[in-house]
Amino acid sequence: MLEGYRGRALQLLSSLGIEVGDTVQVYNEKVNVKGLLMPSYSKDDSIIVLKLDNGYNAGFSIEKYKVELIGKSGKTSEALGKQSSSPGKIKIISTGGTIVSKVEYETGAVRPALSTEEIVRFLPEIQEISSISAQVLFSILSENMKPEYWVKIAEAVAKAFNEGSEGVVIAHGTDTMSYTASALAFSLTPLPGPVVMVGSQRSSDRPSSDSGINLASSVLLARDAPFGEVVVNMHGESSDTYTVAHRGVKVRKMHTSRRDAFQSINDLPLAKVLWNEKTVKILRSDYIGKSEEVRLNAKFDDRVFLLKFYPGLKPDIIDILISSGYRGIIVEGTGLGHTSSDFQEAFKRAKEEGVFVGMTSQCLFGRVNMNVYQTGRLLQQSGVVPLSDILPEVALVKLMWSLGQSKDLEEITRIMLKNVAGEYNPRHFLDHFPRWKHE
Amino acid sequence: MLEGYRGRALQLLSSLGIEVGDTVQVYNEKVNVKGLLMPSYSKDDSIIVLKLDNGYNAGFSIEKYKVELIGKSGKTSEALGKQSSSPGKIKIISTGGTIVSKVEYETGAVRPALSTEEIVRFLPEIQEISSISAQVLFSILSENMKPEYWVKIAEAVAKAFNEGSEGVVIAHGTDTMSYTASALAFSLTPLPGPVVMVGSQRSSDRPSSDSGINLASSVLLARDAPFGEVVVNMHGESSDTYTVAHRGVKVRKMHTSRRDAFQSINDLPLAKVLWNEKTVKILRSDYIGKSEEVRLNAKFDDRVFLLKFYPGLKPDIIDILISSGYRGIIVEGTGLGHTSSDFQEAFKRAKEEGVFVGMTSQCLFGRVNMNVYQTGRLLQQSGVVPLSDILPEVALVKLMWSLGQSKDLEEITRIMLKNVAGEYNPRHFLDHFPRWKHE
Repeated sequence: MLEGYRGRALQLLSSLGIEVGDTVQVYNEKVNVKGLLMPSYSKDDSIIVLKLDNGYNAGFSIEKYKVELIGKSGKTSEALGKQSSSPGKIKIISTGGTIVSKVEYETGAVRPALSTEEIVRFLPEIQEISSISAQVLFSILSENMKPEYWVKIAEAVAKAFNEGSEGVVIAHGTDTMSYTASALAFSLTPLPGPVVMVGSQRSSDRPSSDSGINLASSVLLARDAPFGEVVVNMHGESSDTYTVAHRGVKVRKMHTSRRDAFQSINDLPLAKVLWNEKTVKILRSDYIGKSEEVRLNAKFDDRVFLLKFYPGLKPDIIDILISSGYRGIIVEGTGLGHTSSDFQEAFKRAKEEGVFVGMTSQCLFGRVNMNVYQTGRLLQQSGVVPLSDILPEVALVKLMWSLGQSKDLEEITRIMLKNVAGEYNPRHFLDHFPRWKHE
Repeated sequence: MLEGYRGRALQLLSSLGIEVGDTVQVYNEKVNVKGLLMPSYSKDDSIIVLKLDNGYNAGFSIEKYKVELIGKSGKTSEALGKQSSSPGKIKIISTGGTIVSKVEYETGAVRPALSTEEIVRFLPEIQEISSISAQVLFSILSENMKPEYWVKIAEAVAKAFNEGSEGVVIAHGTDTMSYTASALAFSLTPLPGPVVMVGSQRSSDRPSSDSGINLASSVLLARDAPFGEVVVNMHGESSDTYTVAHRGVKVRKMHTSRRDAFQSINDLPLAKVLWNEKTVKILRSDYIGKSEEVRLNAKFDDRVFLLKFYPGLKPDIIDILISSGYRGIIVEGTGLGHTSSDFQEAFKRAKEEGVFVGMTSQCLFGRVNMNVYQTGRLLQQSGVVPLSDILPEVALVKLMWSLGQSKDLEEITRIMLKNVAGEYNPRHFLDHFPRWKHE
């Protein structure tokens, strides 16, 4: 079995009797490395891909290295396949994204393709952490995620717990992972066990991929974490020393490409997974504990608009949104929660039409406070509801969910202001704000 | 002269012959402090306000402290007033905002009111840094700032340089300060001297106000900086050890209330002002130097929409924007610059209608790259222009400015992709990303 290999590498590996999963040594005058042979998706047919002890995949050109078979894996693809379909303590639900992607030969771009079975084959040590069962729910890039898919994922999570899983890992594209995390948190909190969302910033065929450590750490976390919450577990820094589990409703993708792109905002992470020590370190005691039973409440109304205010934005956009059928608006205001004062009348009309208008801040860090300045007070008089320190994107998802619970504006306001899944943090500390370098 | 004082404090100060500007000592068993008497805007008529040596104003209750006159200022209000209207090397243009605000007695909220003359009276040491001339251009809260005001500010800056100023300081509300900074940078770069925008996160009547250090540091920077750029100069950390001058097109308000809310994104600051040492430390050599003459090009077309993409957003919003007369759309996409793929057709229609669509990332940090994934490639085929590492808000202002330069979509695209004022940073380093605490 030599999936993905072509041309020169295929010829060499075949002649040496090496198959995917076997332990292989590559060496030259300078380098001597041992690893497991992985399937190849390299465009260069001279490259063989090894999974190294540090969890990373690395590509080696057979033009530069000699290759030797050290040991046969003894496992056939079929055996691995069977393993992953048996019921297990930890359920891995795959939805797509880079963590399960391969390079598309035609365009050279990356698209989701690998099944969860293939992932488990990439990372045989996962099965040493826990018994695993796996399910491919979707195979889509996360920018194509929609509220109706959130419902399917929530249902799959509920089903997994009802069937006896002790924790769930969800492989998901990173683009909209925090939106899905919020949707699941509102639909399912409290939970009988951890729901760990995980993705990858580098696809698993690339040497610097973080998918290995991220996925394996997530299985460890799903097994050991004491909480019944939805978290996002991703690299904590640019090197691969640890992953960090952020509360799903307090996390944001803050960088387009870094492996440590996901960071808590106005919050500290719940846990740290030290991969080399195979240890989960719980960082806070105020997590939401495990519930006895699954509570599933996944109804969303997506007629909600996220409106980022800026100088020059004209208030008639509010009327345009109302007449287009939107039922709620989350404003990303400036500073403590402001728009220009000429929005007051438009917001009043929104309220009269039964459209909820909530205020968040485009600063992202800190808390909306509409009592400090005249503008804030007048906006509140127009019916705008200040939403404290909730992130704009989380407020958006929560409003979609709140509109799924009630049609009554007062009841919707009550739900929006209630702390459902830790989306409001009553206490901010100085070290919630990261440190920039000034030298 | 005892502006703002009423009741008990007015009675005591009058009886002691103390006026605003005099040096005063306040003390009890535990505390002994010296400072200049400031005008009061406290609601409590027992409070007197002193400017301390560290640049901060602090309030002291005459119920808890004894008060003594140490020295008369010798300057009358009229003299101070005259000083500020004479031509000076550094021009302070006041547009409003917290830095020039006082508490509004009726609502208890803060609104802009103090004139630049009053500011100079608050901070007499500014006149030791440089000769100052001052102008109150507007007195508005920055959330009410509009593109037509950007033009007025740009014209006032150009006029100041044409009349011989060597540097300009602009007092501005913090809410939209970075938008105005971008607008000025595109309208005026390169400049004959520094344009330093400055604001305050705490109003000048509050003990913890940062307006003193921020304003005085800005005058120092405007006098000594070697560049011809627009910068935002604000507190560098939560204590008052230094301010940081960020490139106007690479800065963002990242916190609703912290004094060090402004931070460079995908960039390092140009300079640091060490206030206690009265020293400007230039941190980079790749600044834009001073020009011989003023170049003023301040035309904006505000028919531009900033569209933040999220799961559930329906593509018909693009058609709604086109038919509402918008001429350009800046998309804040997910990750490397994505929307769901069902936006492709709508973006094609936008292009056919001559509407520019540019892509930025809601991650804020990092760079848009629409060649990595299938989605990005297809969006580019639909005419969406990837805008590298420019901030969404800066792209928005630049598109308003570009539409002011040309009606031709190709020419607009050319302007948008050209690095006009340092809004694109070709090189990112690891330490551009701040450090979060994970313990």
